[in-house]
Amino acid sequence: MGIITLTTDFGLQDAYVAAMKGVILSLNPDARILDVSHQVEPQNIQQAAFLLGETCHYFPADTIHLAVVDPGVGSGRRGIILSTPGGLFIGPDNGLFSYALSPYLPKITSDLLPAEGLLKLDLPRGVEAFQISNPAFWLNPVSTTFHGRDIFAPAAAYVSLGTPLSEFGPRLSWIYAFHLPGPEIAADGSFTGHVVYIDHFGNLITDITPRMLPSDKSIGLEILGRTIYGLCQNYTQASGLLAVIGSSGRLEIALQGGSAAGLLSARPGDCFHLSILTSPKG
Amino acid sequence: MGIITLTTDFGLQDAYVAAMKGVILSLNPDARILDVSHQVEPQNIQQAAFLLGETCHYFPADTIHLAVVDPGVGSGRRGIILSTPGGLFIGPDNGLFSYALSPYLPKITSDLLPAEGLLKLDLPRGVEAFQISNPAFWLNPVSTTFHGRDIFAPAAAYVSLGTPLSEFGPRLSWIYAFHLPGPEIAADGSFTGHVVYIDHFGNLITDITPRMLPSDKSIGLEILGRTIYGLCQNYTQASGLLAVIGSSGRLEIALQGGSAAGLLSARPGDCFHLSILTSPKG
Amino acid sequence: MGIITLTTDFGLQDAYVAAMKGVILSLNPDARILDVSHQVEPQNIQQAAFLLGETCHYFPADTIHLAVVDPGVGSGRRGIILSTPGGLFIGPDNGLFSYALSPYLPKITSDLLPAEGLLKLDLPRGVEAFQISNPAFWLNPVSTTFHGRDIFAPAAAYVSLGTPLSEFGPRLSWIYAFHLPGPEIAADGSFTGHVVYIDHFGNLITDITPRMLPSDKSIGLEILGRTIYGLCQNYTQASGLLAVIGSSGRLEIALQGGSAAGLLSARPGDCFHLSILTSPKG
Repeated sequence: MGIITLTTDFGLQDAYVAAMKGVILSLNPDARILDVSHQVEPQNIQQAAFLLGETCHYFPADTIHLAVVDPGVGSGRRGIILSTPGGLFIGPDNGLFSYALSPYLPKITSDLLPAEGLLKLDLPRGVEAFQISNPAFWLNPVSTTFHGRDIFAPAAAYVSLGTPLSEFGPRLSWIYAFHLPGPEIAADGSFTGHVVYIDHFGNLITDITPRMLPSDKSIGLEILGRTIYGLCQNYTQASGLLAVIGSSGRLEIALQGGSAAGLLSARPGDCFHLSILTSPKG
Repeated sequence: MGIITLTTDFGLQDAYVAAMKGVILSLNPDARILDVSHQVEPQNIQQAAFLLGETCHYFPADTIHLAVVDPGVGSGRRGIILSTPGGLFIGPDNGLFSYALSPYLPKITSDLLPAEGLLKLDLPRGVEAFQISNPAFWLNPVSTTFHGRDIFAPAAAYVSLGTPLSEFGPRLSWIYAFHLPGPEIAADGSFTGHVVYIDHFGNLITDITPRMLPSDKSIGLEILGRTIYGLCQNYTQASGLLAVIGSSGRLEIALQGGSAAGLLSARPGDCFHLSILTSPKG
Repeated sequence: MGIITLTTDFGLQDAYVAAMKGVILSLNPDARILDVSHQVEPQNIQQAAFLLGETCHYFPADTIHLAVVDPGVGSGRRGIILSTPGGLFIGPDNGLFSYALSPYLPKITSDLLPAEGLLKLDLPRGVEAFQISNPAFWLNPVSTTFHGRDIFAPAAAYVSLGTPLSEFGPRLSWIYAFHLPGPEIAADGSFTGHVVYIDHFGNLITDITPRMLPSDKSIGLEILGRTIYGLCQNYTQASGLLAVIGSSGRLEIALQGGSAAGLLSARPGDCFHLSILTSPKG
C-alpha cells in the first residue's frame, strides 16, 4: 500500500529527483518512495525499461512504478498509467514499460515487433491503460520540460491515494512498445545472442534463457574474439571468463574477480555466437 | 509532519550520510528522511544553496531541510535554525540558505549584496533564526570535524519532535547570505546574463527569468562563440543548441539530444549576452 | 523497530539494490530501509566492513544491518545472522562484520589475528550467531549469484518481523574475521601507522587513536615524503597538510580546502611514521 518506485535518468547530483519526491509527499504524506535507479544514461529508454522489467516483480503487486526517461517531454507524446497484475506503471508512452509488460505478452517476439522504432501494441487481457490528460491532477503551472515533477509525480501520488484511473483521462487500447532483443536461431541449432545490459560489475547480461539450452549438452560461446566452454554454477567456479545463468534468469558472461566488459570492451547490443556442443554436459 | 531532507557534499561512498540518518532515527524513530543531493562538489556552498532553493518549495511547508556543506566546521562559524513560511532550515551560517530565503527578500539584489563574500542580512518579517548553541541537544562527545552528525542531525531530530526553537540558543537578528547572481542590463536594453548551474544533462541554467524578457519580441543570445535565436517551448523543437524556459522558471541553454555544457565547455559563472531583437516573436 | 540498513558493492546504476528492497517490503511492508553505502569497491570486503563499523553504533540497537559484498556467492561460504548488543548483522560469513564486532572483542589485535586471510573467531559473551540455512526463509527459486536478494534480504525481513534467530539455522560458535589494522610500536616509542580508509574528500583515515598519543607532547608525522608537525583541532587551523582527530575518533591526515589523497597519491594500506616530539604540545 502506497509504495512508489522511481526510475529516471536524472542522476543524483541535481535536485530533480528530490523535487518529484517533494511533490508526491505534499499530496500523499504517507507515500513510501523507493529508488530503482536514477543513473540511467541520459535518454536511454531501453536501459530504463530493462531495469524496471528486472525489478518490478520483486515489489508488492500494488506498487506504483514511476519512470521518467523522457526525451520527448513537452512534445505530443502521451503520458500514461498502465495497470497490470504485477503493478501500476506511470510515465511517458515511449516504450519505457516494454519489459514490464512482457510477462503478459507471450507473443512479443521479433516477429511481432519491428527491430527499430516503436510498435503500437494492443493491450492484452488484464492490462489497462489510461492517458494522463486531465489537468486537474497536474501541478499549476506545468513546465514544458519537467513533466516528471509536474504531471507524473502528482499522478503517482493521486493513484496512491486511490483516485480511480479513469479520472486521469481516456482509456487507451494500445500503447507504444519496442522490440525486445532475442537470439536468432540458425539451421544448425546454434544461436546468435545479444548483450542486453552491462551491470556495475562488468557482467554481460544476454538475451539467452536457460530453457533455450539443452539440459544434457554443453555449450560453446564465442564473443569478441574469445571462447568460453560450458556453464558455471557461480562466479567462483572458473578463473578468467565464464558463462553462468545469472540472477535475472539470463545467461551472463562474467570474469572471475574482474570486469568482463572491461576485458572484452563489450557494449550493449554486441552479438555473440552460442553453439550446442556434441559432448555431454559437465 | 516529520519530513527531514538532507543536502550535503558528503558523496555516497562514505558512511557520513548514514551516520546522520542513524542519529536522527535514534532520536525520532518516526522521522521521514529524504535526500536532496549528496553530490554537491566538496565545499561548494553556492551549488548546495542553489539546489536547496530550487527544491524546498516542492515540499510541505513544515519540512525540515538539513544542509551541511561546512568548510568552517569546528571554527567559530555559527550553527543556525531558520524558520520561514516555506520550511525550516538547519545548518551552518555560511550562506547555504541564501536562495531559500530569496522569496522573502524581494530587495535582495546586486545593489544590496556585495559580489564577493558574505553579507550580514537582517531577517525579514515572518522569518526567524536561532543559534544552535545549547549543548543539551548535541551528541556527546562532539567531534570538531563533523557537526552534521553531532550537532545538526540531532537539532533536526529534536525540531521534528516539536522542541521549541528558542531552546536551541539565542534568537538571531541577522544571518549571513551571499550575492545571488543577476543579469546586468545595458543602456540598449540588452543583458549580460550568467550561467548559475549546470545540470546532469549538461543544460546551462541561467539568471534570466521570463519576466525580464518582452513577450512580443524575439531574443538573440551569444555564448562562448555561438549564437542562438529565439526561445523554444521544449527540448525537441530545435536541433542543435536552443534556449528554453526550463523547469526552474529560468532561461536554460540546452542541446537537443546532447550536453550543451559539453559542446560549449561551459562552466558555472560563464557570461553570455542576450539582446532583444527588433523582429517580432516567433 | 524495523530499521534495516543496506551496505553493498552493487552501485546505484543497476536495479540490484531495488530488488532487495522490493523483496524486503513484500515480506514486511512496514520495514524502514536505509542505505549505508552501495559504492563499496566491487568485492572490497575490508572497505565495507570499515564503513559498517563506523556507522552501526549511530543507529538504534535493534537495527538490522544487511551487508552484501559477496565474491564467494554460490560457493560453500556460509550466510550468517549475528546478534550483538549494538545491532543485528546479516550477510555472508567472509569477515564483513569484523569492525562491527570489535567493540565486543577487546583483545582483537594483530597478535590474535593473522595479517593475511581470515581467522576463525570464537564469539564473545553477548554475541550470538546463526547460520542461514533453512530454505523455508529463502526466495524460491534461489539464484546461485544473488543471495543478497534471494537469501539475505528475506532473512532481514523475517528478522524484522520477529522470527526467532534459531529458526534460520544452527547456532554457530565461531565466525570468520580478518585482521584489523593497528600501528606497530618501535622501541623508541614511535609508531608505524596505516591508512585504513580514504574518504570522498580525500582525507586519510588511519589506525591511530588519541589514547595512543601522549596528551602533553606534540607529534611529528612523515607520510609519502611529506612531514606534518602537531595536531590541529579542525580543518581550518592550518593551510596545507594537517593532522586532526577526525569524526571517527582516529587520526586523519587532511589538506585544508583540498584532497590530501590527491596531493600525496595515497592509497589504503599506505604506511606512515609517527614520532612523539620532545617539545611540549602546542
